[in-house]
Amino acid sequence: MIERFQCKTTGAGLFEITDRVQDVVCESGICTGLCTILIQHTSASLTIQENADPSAKHDLQAWLDQLVKPNDPLYTHTSEGPDDMPAHIKAALTSTTLSIPFQQSRLCLGIWQGIYVWEHRYNGGNRKIVVHLGR
Amino acid sequence: MIERFQCKTTGAGLFEITDRVQDVVCESGICTGLCTILIQHTSASLTIQENADPSAKHDLQAWLDQLVKPNDPLYTHTSEGPDDMPAHIKAALTSTTLSIPFQQSRLCLGIWQGIYVWEHRYNGGNRKIVVHLGR
Amino acid sequence: MIERFQCKTTGAGLFEITDRVQDVVCESGICTGLCTILIQHTSASLTIQENADPSAKHDLQAWLDQLVKPNDPLYTHTSEGPDDMPAHIKAALTSTTLSIPFQQSRLCLGIWQGIYVWEHRYNGGNRKIVVHLGR
Repeated sequence: MIERFQCKTTGAGLFEITDRVQDVVCESGICTGLCTILIQHTSASLTIQENADPSAKHDLQAWLDQLVKPNDPLYTHTSEGPDDMPAHIKAALTSTTLSIPFQQSRLCLGIWQGIYVWEHRYNGGNRKIVVHLGR
Repeated sequence: MIERFQCKTTGAGLFEITDRVQDVVCESGICTGLCTILIQHTSASLTIQENADPSAKHDLQAWLDQLVKPNDPLYTHTSEGPDDMPAHIKAALTSTTLSIPFQQSRLCLGIWQGIYVWEHRYNGGNRKIVVHLGR
Repeated sequence: MIERFQCKTTGAGLFEITDRVQDVVCESGICTGLCTILIQHTSASLTIQENADPSAKHDLQAWLDQLVKPNDPLYTHTSEGPDDMPAHIKAALTSTTLSIPFQQSRLCLGIWQGIYVWEHRYNGGNRKIVVHLGR
């Protein structure tokens, strides 16, 4: 079973989608299975990260910005703006797909885990997510 | 089908769980399918890496420690200790979920591949693993 | 259902396998499901990246080469050549497995997304890919 939804991002950073993915699982009526998420973009990605303290998300972003800088002289792919090539690199270093088991229609995440869209472009956008549920 | 086990880690580094995952597949009686593993933590992660020469695991750890340093002045998430924020970053750069096909109840890994819990905290802990088997 | 194919790489860089994976899905006759890909190596990896502008692939390679250098004095795993330990690190930072939903026997990739084998050894080789299709 496949469902789709969009996540509106407003700039670089982590946008939680745990509840939206959990809703897809609940509405499917499937009790036990595997939920796979794909983000249909190469300048935004997915991650499972700490959902408790916002400072962790802030530092993840700050650290990645320090590692992958805009305007690196080695970039040749510059026609789509200074944030585009860094966005592709950041996406390559994180995840485009995630698979999460579920039981009793609840995602088997740890207590402090949340599912996030990680936006890497400065302005964000409507990011398309595909969800597959299997048994 | 979902099974769970814990992996006790004794400090930062790679802890092999290939045999334990293979055991879950064997005991299921399923011949052909997909085995998905999730680690329910954001300061430890999963990786498939070289299982032959221990020096490769040593160097992976040393290199990642050099890339993601403790006490970086950009960290604001410091209340859980100097190794906590680096652990979240290291988890984001590696994997929280892995999916491995199996055939004749054997994981389809390459000859030199092993599945590892990658502990990123100094003291380690009991790390919870969820395994889903589908067809 | 499990299929296998090999991807011949001729040196470090990204080698597109989207069409070959799509062919496996088409030939299966399965309409809706999940396609999981595993690369059976620890010195090459998988990534979903921009398939439009070749400059993006060039810059991904150049950036990763800058981050993970050969002959780093911290390496102790040097017996398999100067490109081997960097290859393991690059594989750990990218993906060994990817899961992609499909519908009407078409992979649910974004318009600009392609599936790539990312070769990290200087000389490349025949890289073994395992594909699992589930419903």
